[in-house]
Amino acid sequence: MATFDITGIVQSLHAARHNWRQTQSRNSEAGNRAFPSRDALASIIDSLKGVLFPMRLGPPDLRQESEDFHVAHALDAALHALLHQVKRELTYNASVGDAGRQAIDEQALAAVRRFAAALPGIRTLLDSDVLAAYQGDPAAGSVDEVLLCYPGVLAMIHYRLAHTLYTLGLPLLARIVAELAHAATGIDIHPGARIGAGFFIDHGTGVVIGETAVIGERVRLYQAVTLGAKRFPTDAEGNLQKGLPRHPVVEDDVVIYAGATILGRITLGRGAVIGGNVWLTHDVPAGGRVAQAASREGALANGIGAA
Amino acid sequence: MATFDITGIVQSLHAARHNWRQTQSRNSEAGNRAFPSRDALASIIDSLKGVLFPMRLGPPDLRQESEDFHVAHALDAALHALLHQVKRELTYNASVGDAGRQAIDEQALAAVRRFAAALPGIRTLLDSDVLAAYQGDPAAGSVDEVLLCYPGVLAMIHYRLAHTLYTLGLPLLARIVAELAHAATGIDIHPGARIGAGFFIDHGTGVVIGETAVIGERVRLYQAVTLGAKRFPTDAEGNLQKGLPRHPVVEDDVVIYAGATILGRITLGRGAVIGGNVWLTHDVPAGGRVAQAASREGALANGIGAA
Amino acid sequence: MATFDITGIVQSLHAARHNWRQTQSRNSEAGNRAFPSRDALASIIDSLKGVLFPMRLGPPDLRQESEDFHVAHALDAALHALLHQVKRELTYNASVGDAGRQAIDEQALAAVRRFAAALPGIRTLLDSDVLAAYQGDPAAGSVDEVLLCYPGVLAMIHYRLAHTLYTLGLPLLARIVAELAHAATGIDIHPGARIGAGFFIDHGTGVVIGETAVIGERVRLYQAVTLGAKRFPTDAEGNLQKGLPRHPVVEDDVVIYAGATILGRITLGRGAVIGGNVWLTHDVPAGGRVAQAASREGALANGIGAA
Amino acid sequence: MATFDITGIVQSLHAARHNWRQTQSRNSEAGNRAFPSRDALASIIDSLKGVLFPMRLGPPDLRQESEDFHVAHALDAALHALLHQVKRELTYNASVGDAGRQAIDEQALAAVRRFAAALPGIRTLLDSDVLAAYQGDPAAGSVDEVLLCYPGVLAMIHYRLAHTLYTLGLPLLARIVAELAHAATGIDIHPGARIGAGFFIDHGTGVVIGETAVIGERVRLYQAVTLGAKRFPTDAEGNLQKGLPRHPVVEDDVVIYAGATILGRITLGRGAVIGGNVWLTHDVPAGGRVAQAASREGALANGIGAA
Amino acid sequence: MATFDITGIVQSLHAARHNWRQTQSRNSEAGNRAFPSRDALASIIDSLKGVLFPMRLGPPDLRQESEDFHVAHALDAALHALLHQVKRELTYNASVGDAGRQAIDEQALAAVRRFAAALPGIRTLLDSDVLAAYQGDPAAGSVDEVLLCYPGVLAMIHYRLAHTLYTLGLPLLARIVAELAHAATGIDIHPGARIGAGFFIDHGTGVVIGETAVIGERVRLYQAVTLGAKRFPTDAEGNLQKGLPRHPVVEDDVVIYAGATILGRITLGRGAVIGGNVWLTHDVPAGGRVAQAASREGALANGIGAA
Amino acid sequence: MATFDITGIVQSLHAARHNWRQTQSRNSEAGNRAFPSRDALASIIDSLKGVLFPMRLGPPDLRQESEDFHVAHALDAALHALLHQVKRELTYNASVGDAGRQAIDEQALAAVRRFAAALPGIRTLLDSDVLAAYQGDPAAGSVDEVLLCYPGVLAMIHYRLAHTLYTLGLPLLARIVAELAHAATGIDIHPGARIGAGFFIDHGTGVVIGETAVIGERVRLYQAVTLGAKRFPTDAEGNLQKGLPRHPVVEDDVVIYAGATILGRITLGRGAVIGGNVWLTHDVPAGGRVAQAASREGALANGIGAA
Repeated sequence: MATFDITGIVQSLHAARHNWRQTQSRNSEAGNRAFPSRDALASIIDSLKGVLFPMRLGPPDLRQESEDFHVAHALDAALHALLHQVKRELTYNASVGDAGRQAIDEQALAAVRRFAAALPGIRTLLDSDVLAAYQGDPAAGSVDEVLLCYPGVLAMIHYRLAHTLYTLGLPLLARIVAELAHAATGIDIHPGARIGAGFFIDHGTGVVIGETAVIGERVRLYQAVTLGAKRFPTDAEGNLQKGLPRHPVVEDDVVIYAGATILGRITLGRGAVIGGNVWLTHDVPAGGRVAQAASREGALANGIGAA
Repeated sequence: MATFDITGIVQSLHAARHNWRQTQSRNSEAGNRAFPSRDALASIIDSLKGVLFPMRLGPPDLRQESEDFHVAHALDAALHALLHQVKRELTYNASVGDAGRQAIDEQALAAVRRFAAALPGIRTLLDSDVLAAYQGDPAAGSVDEVLLCYPGVLAMIHYRLAHTLYTLGLPLLARIVAELAHAATGIDIHPGARIGAGFFIDHGTGVVIGETAVIGERVRLYQAVTLGAKRFPTDAEGNLQKGLPRHPVVEDDVVIYAGATILGRITLGRGAVIGGNVWLTHDVPAGGRVAQAASREGALANGIGAA
Repeated sequence: MATFDITGIVQSLHAARHNWRQTQSRNSEAGNRAFPSRDALASIIDSLKGVLFPMRLGPPDLRQESEDFHVAHALDAALHALLHQVKRELTYNASVGDAGRQAIDEQALAAVRRFAAALPGIRTLLDSDVLAAYQGDPAAGSVDEVLLCYPGVLAMIHYRLAHTLYTLGLPLLARIVAELAHAATGIDIHPGARIGAGFFIDHGTGVVIGETAVIGERVRLYQAVTLGAKRFPTDAEGNLQKGLPRHPVVEDDVVIYAGATILGRITLGRGAVIGGNVWLTHDVPAGGRVAQAASREGALANGIGAA
Repeated sequence: MATFDITGIVQSLHAARHNWRQTQSRNSEAGNRAFPSRDALASIIDSLKGVLFPMRLGPPDLRQESEDFHVAHALDAALHALLHQVKRELTYNASVGDAGRQAIDEQALAAVRRFAAALPGIRTLLDSDVLAAYQGDPAAGSVDEVLLCYPGVLAMIHYRLAHTLYTLGLPLLARIVAELAHAATGIDIHPGARIGAGFFIDHGTGVVIGETAVIGERVRLYQAVTLGAKRFPTDAEGNLQKGLPRHPVVEDDVVIYAGATILGRITLGRGAVIGGNVWLTHDVPAGGRVAQAASREGALANGIGAA
Repeated sequence: MATFDITGIVQSLHAARHNWRQTQSRNSEAGNRAFPSRDALASIIDSLKGVLFPMRLGPPDLRQESEDFHVAHALDAALHALLHQVKRELTYNASVGDAGRQAIDEQALAAVRRFAAALPGIRTLLDSDVLAAYQGDPAAGSVDEVLLCYPGVLAMIHYRLAHTLYTLGLPLLARIVAELAHAATGIDIHPGARIGAGFFIDHGTGVVIGETAVIGERVRLYQAVTLGAKRFPTDAEGNLQKGLPRHPVVEDDVVIYAGATILGRITLGRGAVIGGNVWLTHDVPAGGRVAQAASREGALANGIGAA
Repeated sequence: MATFDITGIVQSLHAARHNWRQTQSRNSEAGNRAFPSRDALASIIDSLKGVLFPMRLGPPDLRQESEDFHVAHALDAALHALLHQVKRELTYNASVGDAGRQAIDEQALAAVRRFAAALPGIRTLLDSDVLAAYQGDPAAGSVDEVLLCYPGVLAMIHYRLAHTLYTLGLPLLARIVAELAHAATGIDIHPGARIGAGFFIDHGTGVVIGETAVIGERVRLYQAVTLGAKRFPTDAEGNLQKGLPRHPVVEDDVVIYAGATILGRITLGRGAVIGGNVWLTHDVPAGGRVAQAASREGALANGIGAA
């Protein structure tokens, strides 16, 4: 007797796939359509990190005199690889025949060209983020330490690249880039959010920033802060409505301490300070300071654990 | 003079190991017993992902006409590799001579056969989870995006495989499979928990679901939700009692928003909605809605940060 | 026409780097200075895990009779590799000519020798941590399972090595070692913290322990616990003051349940128990038990989600 | 000053390439045409070895009960990969617009289908080669040893696959497959040669078999045997004439000892035996035996070395 | 229609395997028996090179003070790996039940212990070979260059290890080790040959040394020299007789120049010099010098090429 | 009892090394001196192949518009890597203190700059070699096939790079580069030989070209041709004299067929044709044709094999 009934299980799995495809009205042609590749994106983003910061995130032992050679080569290769993935996203979403292929090729090329042109500006924004981290954390020893060690900075590199893809009409690629950072840092920034210069997230694990959040300049966040939606509006048929502004607006110079939960399309005015663990669903004026209500303090008691 | 006193440190480390083994009454034979390998399990699970979803999680450029060839081959190899790890767990736990080895071999084979037979059902359950995520998140663009990008779905693939191992009497393997997902997603689901079809965790970082939790169908959770134990019962001698039901029962169609902490063997009735950051240690009736008490709202104050 | 304007973008990126370096007063010589390598440290730490626990974290299929051969070899190689990284940190921080290089070499050698001598003691401390986890978790099946599966133990291995580096004046290396664990486990322990024997963190995701925290023996923590600073003291010019004690002191045998936030230089007395989600900014006496105030309980309401 | 004048050398290399392309009348479009990939072919051939001999040249630890699963999967993947390379060869040789692409696709598919259908016959022929080696070498311990250790058998596996490609009109792919064996064994068999069943080359280094050689069944060769052309016929304009029969015909059961050089379209009759180092440019009758002339024996002398 | 008829070809290949196994009387159990692994042997030999010459063939950047640590570790690992392969050879050759397994284990252990004990002597012999090459080649710049660059030395390292395996009754392992060198150097030394100290092969491509050859001390060979058998004796039934002495005896201090072919159980006396391309089938006295007969010189002629 | 007596064997190996080092007067400092790395050179040469022929030997899917970016980057990296190896060779050969290190650095830099400047000329020479192969082999289908498939061309790429290193006073690096080709092709060209444009070696296995050989333009060679030394002159003390011209001079347009052995400082005049297997130790005039003497033909006989 064979060790395992491979043939039987293969048939059952085949049937399970068949059922799924039927319920999903997915024909063979669509099922064969390639999805953008997470591994390919990971590799592209790694290259772009070296393009943006060649001496620190490029190949070991690069010297300044050789930077431009490395940047030109790596940029060229990364953009061509990205172009391939962009075509995958555009093809995946379209139902195209050969006629549509040329349109997709042109659209993809235009998008990657705009993406490429945005890179110097992204570098400048990331410099401001690095500086904000260095200045905002008493434990930071140098800007290089910040760039190389801080998960919040890693998340911002991914976010600023992902956001550019998002604005170019490539939400799938943007999502994959963002999830790569989420897996590495525990920081979940939706690429649709808009975030100004000099943004700093300390520690970072558990931070969630929603799709329509708008964040000004020099804002600082700590771990486990949520900038979320209060509710999901539905239309008359009860379907979720997409794209409506539903996450907070955070103005310049705001600080939000660890564990705060800020929900809905509210506005935190310029320079506001939100205390740790605060639960907040209404506007805060410029310069306002919000803390946990007194009752929030733990009371001496026959304690109950949450294990 | 040598650069380092390798010999001296090796001796001290030897002595430290010796002390530990003596206090642990661990003889050489037991110490040599192989523990199941995390790397091997990671590789097996990766193969099984391709077995379950060949076109999306299998090798790149697979075509539908070749699916069954890939599935048969990968399944066969993965099951044999799993069989090897199952024998390790069973041997690790037993203190067997050669006489016992045959019994272990038979037990291992029976377990892996049952595991294999469960795979088509697991695929169908995972399809329901994917669909729940697609329908539950306004940002989800397609079922493929959900399958490939959502950490909550990754955690469920691991969980459903791990839970099957757990029910087959292989808690170590189950644990390793679960921790692989925990490391990648920040979602910590104990393989002993029971979770119905159509389960969706959004964002996910910080979610903890305990060993005896029971979750119905179509339940939805957000980041940082804990389904935990309220206390650990001890017996007369003060030893922890194992296996007692101590985590929540969550009935069908319940939604639990981010940061909620649900503790103890309480029941959340069908369709209940639990608000964000809620701290809950008692039952909620079917259709009940629980929110943060008003005092929970942050008050304007001389704010205090949690950095 | 070329596909992409590589030359133009390379020039713009060059200009962006130039601007940054000018504002950072960073000349070419300093910019070429090598930063310690995260990849190298990751590899060194992996080797040291095998040095500390050869049968479980060393090469597969090692046998006890061969342990010392492996340990000697791996230790020797790891220490030399570490020596190289230590020189990088010392050089990065100094502005040295050739004259200073010898001093750095001597300082580096002395530091690595002290680090090496500390390893047997680290092993013994880690044994106590493993035992604490085994005894503190009703789900733990064996000490091997704890060592190989628990993210809290992984975090402690990194912490105890990182802390030793920190006390030897190598904060950069210490930081990198700590961030490697942070990325893998979601547990963020600053290497400056002092932690006694028998420390156990369960689940772990979201735990943050600050630089000046002091933790006694046999302390137990659950996921999402913060031992943070209440505020950052500034000097007369408004600059952050570094190094001041600003995080909690946690005495022996304290238990802190999930989600608790403990802020500032307060003291939790021996044997205190802090309930889940508690927000705490003042001392707790020995044996004290602190729980969430009653108002913390969720109220039945027109619930509001945090998605 | 920069360490190297990269820019200047790049320009000079650019100019050198430009010159070459101009003299070769090679426009950019043709230059971009992909050549079949040696690495890809190497990988395809490795897979086909496992398809032909799954238990010995397939994945380690395959079991007989799983052979067909492995074979089906590996064959399917290898044929698709081969199809891609076949298209490269056909495209490289053609100058095609989009119109021609479909014709090439169809031609490629037909060729690979025929190649696939030939595999079982190739296996049977290779079995006869293995058996011939086993029976012809007193040192051979088993057929498995022959299959796994003998360079002559490795060369025959490559040859029989390469020859099939050659007859399907794919001389480039055939050449690459043959050169892979040449590099590994020092045996250079042109894929155009025709070789019957039960062929055995012992030792093998330095063997050269030309394009139009015809070899019968059960022929045996030793190292450094050349079956070459005597001269290259030229046409009226002095150009080399291609494809004319110019290499020896070797009938069944011939043995040719080491270092023999057999040149031109001569015939070695059935069962002939050709001695070592013989230089031969005329026919040998069936059953004939040819040895080195007596003068060939070395004479005692003031020896002269060839270093 | 499917691209390829995978199922049909798989069946035909299955039938071809079935036929082969039937003609070879090979049942499933025997077919499953693992053959020693070429890849595993390659890795073991690489390790042993580092054991024998740690500073030159061991890991890069090893320092002399750390040599013994490396040697102990690598030796221990290599011997255990070799033990596994030895068991494979012994099992492959035997037809054993469980009863025989213990005998094989004991036999394998004894063989590997003897092999290990022989290593210091092998190192000393190889030192003499290196020195011979250094002294015998006017182009050799240093003993390190010889050790690291000369294919003849690489072949001798493999030969001396392979010969030791051969004398321990492990001809399969010996053969694989020898073929690894053959593929890398074009030098084919049968592991059964006996070769004294200070042996040097220059250039080497095409050298063949047969199983029963006996070579004294300080012998020097150039490329394409054959020490072969003149004929294969057969017994009354016409079967090849194995193990009879059939290759030359070469006494101390003999030099054999390139391309010479020495056949049969003849003796080249001490200090003899054999000229290039000589064909020799009879004894040469001590101190004799043999050169190509005069007629061997090429004559001016209407030349004939061998292409 | 331990499985193996590791400690004892390590000690014996230690003693063997000690003996060797004593007889070689090799102190610890010299023994620690790094030898140039074969692996590093292999990687450098691979990069330089892509620098010289970016579209065919560079990264797959490179496009002509991106060639210069790739070339600049790869050239820069390869030259820096080569600089490191050049310093190793110069240091290995010198016995330097810190004072000498600067001189070595300057010498190394000057050598690599000259090497770099030679690359465009090398490319042009190699183009002539490729063209010669294409025109000289009736089987060659295209210049790309020649470049990618012909072992003779591979050998020439290595030779032309190695020769440049040799003329820059780097014989060790040159030797390693040459041996890499020898191992891959069986063609052994000493880097000291001088070879003009348009050189073609067909088949190639067994070709040996000595250090002082001088070869003109458009020369063609076949497999197993030796251009060797007739004898090694010794000085009064019997030591080998180095560097004396001792290999043939081959003038323009000479053809040498397979297996010919040409020995000593003789001259083959312009356009000479040397037949296969010829043994030649005297000059040949321009246009001369040399063939095997008639007696070389094999005679029908009671054949004797060379197995």
